[in-house]
Amino acid sequence: MHPVIPDTGNATNLPNPGRSTSESRSYVAVDWGTSSFRLWRLAAGGEVLDRAAGPFGMAGLPKDGFGRVLEEQLARLSVSKNVPVIICGMAGAAQGWCEAPYIQAPTELSQLGSGAVRVPGHEREVHILPGVMQAKPCNVMRGEETQILGLVDVRPDYNGIVCLPGTHTKWVQVRDGRIEHFTTCMTGEIFSLLCNHSVLKHSTVGGGWDSCAFLEAVAQVASAPASLADSLFKLRAEMLLEHLSSSTARARLSGMLVGIELAATRSYWAEGAVALIGESSLCHNYEVALASNSVAVELLDSEAMTLGGLASAFRQLEGPHE
Amino acid sequence: MHPVIPDTGNATNLPNPGRSTSESRSYVAVDWGTSSFRLWRLAAGGEVLDRAAGPFGMAGLPKDGFGRVLEEQLARLSVSKNVPVIICGMAGAAQGWCEAPYIQAPTELSQLGSGAVRVPGHEREVHILPGVMQAKPCNVMRGEETQILGLVDVRPDYNGIVCLPGTHTKWVQVRDGRIEHFTTCMTGEIFSLLCNHSVLKHSTVGGGWDSCAFLEAVAQVASAPASLADSLFKLRAEMLLEHLSSSTARARLSGMLVGIELAATRSYWAEGAVALIGESSLCHNYEVALASNSVAVELLDSEAMTLGGLASAFRQLEGPHE
Repeated sequence: MHPVIPDTGNATNLPNPGRSTSESRSYVAVDWGTSSFRLWRLAAGGEVLDRAAGPFGMAGLPKDGFGRVLEEQLARLSVSKNVPVIICGMAGAAQGWCEAPYIQAPTELSQLGSGAVRVPGHEREVHILPGVMQAKPCNVMRGEETQILGLVDVRPDYNGIVCLPGTHTKWVQVRDGRIEHFTTCMTGEIFSLLCNHSVLKHSTVGGGWDSCAFLEAVAQVASAPASLADSLFKLRAEMLLEHLSSSTARARLSGMLVGIELAATRSYWAEGAVALIGESSLCHNYEVALASNSVAVELLDSEAMTLGGLASAFRQLEGPHE
Repeated sequence: MHPVIPDTGNATNLPNPGRSTSESRSYVAVDWGTSSFRLWRLAAGGEVLDRAAGPFGMAGLPKDGFGRVLEEQLARLSVSKNVPVIICGMAGAAQGWCEAPYIQAPTELSQLGSGAVRVPGHEREVHILPGVMQAKPCNVMRGEETQILGLVDVRPDYNGIVCLPGTHTKWVQVRDGRIEHFTTCMTGEIFSLLCNHSVLKHSTVGGGWDSCAFLEAVAQVASAPASLADSLFKLRAEMLLEHLSSSTARARLSGMLVGIELAATRSYWAEGAVALIGESSLCHNYEVALASNSVAVELLDSEAMTLGGLASAFRQLEGPHE
């Protein structure tokens, strides 16, 4: 087990994936999700030399397709065979490339590197980081734990709540370099399903965003969660009878779903401070929803947290060389 | 405006679409929904002579495809050109065959026949029944109002709540032959989306039904509606970590969605009695969920209510001949 990475004392200058010893090697970091693939080529000193991205997510790949996709991307960037790769995300799921079994919360984030799995049978040195599970209440994450490692890498004294909005939004209690406990709300996936595949698609197809409608819906459902059930169809009825605009319908739909999420996660944000990591426009919505509940919000750069976490985990892997 | 159809005094013998005068004509009744098409050929006396059904719902038809589909089905049954047709459901929507504008609740159900629209430019006499709208809270229905007309046709003294479980479940206050007010929950559509298109499909793909899990989930979410938001993903996590069975996952998912529906519609069922009209296994689920909340449930035959309603509306149309 590796110790918690010490504070850099420089929280404003993140990420800082360098901090290399003279033995450090250059490497490649990959965030491999369900639907997306993002790759960074990093110098020994930590600077990003090159990057690649594409729709090569786990969901579209056969088990034997991961190695080919990775090497194709590395060949495009002329990365030699002796450069190691570290991966976080769904590539480590049972249905991914090579299963990296979950580590169990509560857990030190420094466990992530030591829980990494080396992909067997692949010529290049490739390590996949584990996800984190929780036994009771039962829950799992893959990818978000690496971003939280990126946070505690630069802020080892961070004690508080981290919310990672997305397809499956995570709410995580972090303390002393540890994930204490967490929960998941499928808000993003449900919003997408209702917008694209339900009868409400006729109401939201025009896009747009009405900020006031969003906040009103957050407030309504956060204070009366059951009202979600008989409010959704009103978006359809109001479009048919009152020509409700798409911008109002979309924002109200999102607000209702965020509203019930806030009602369910009150124990996480009730102390009044949350750090947000995620796509910026989505985080902005959570920020205004939380601010309307008097919660102080800190926005953290999602890519910086991912890169910082992968760099920290890579240093853990390289530990014996130091 | 036609008067409310008088009580037949024979509530156990439903439907009774006959009650014809000597002037009655034989006719064809059609329930034309978003995804389905059901047709009955009826003798002047009301007996069902023949029937047809198929996946010829509004969603799959161009505006000029309705007439062709109808005549193809009638030709298969050798129905002559002078036999009139009466239709309820989405064929009367703006995006259907020929718009039959909504009548506004509160409304006498006897208004349905007089609100029917004759399809122009179609050789055969075809009438489409209107749906019902509500201005505040904004809501609409198309098809369910005809089933409720079928109920009050045989039970004109029915005063109480009618729940019509389905893709979009309706809860309707009926009094003295009138629809007083109603609400809609998208429970069926959301269940289908989550089962077939979300990450939960991996948990529910095996089918099956665990009655205890259903009732436990109903009770949990009905008493704590916000818990829906952070309970859904547990179905995925428990499958990954604890091999949760598909039968338990499906029933728990359904129970959670019915639970928040019951929390939202408490004012409808709080008086303790509900009549259910719908697909029988779905109605059974609502029945046990309501019974667990000490609500007395009466199950009504869905096809009988549809046929009875169409017959009643047809008599309203034929009124001047009587």
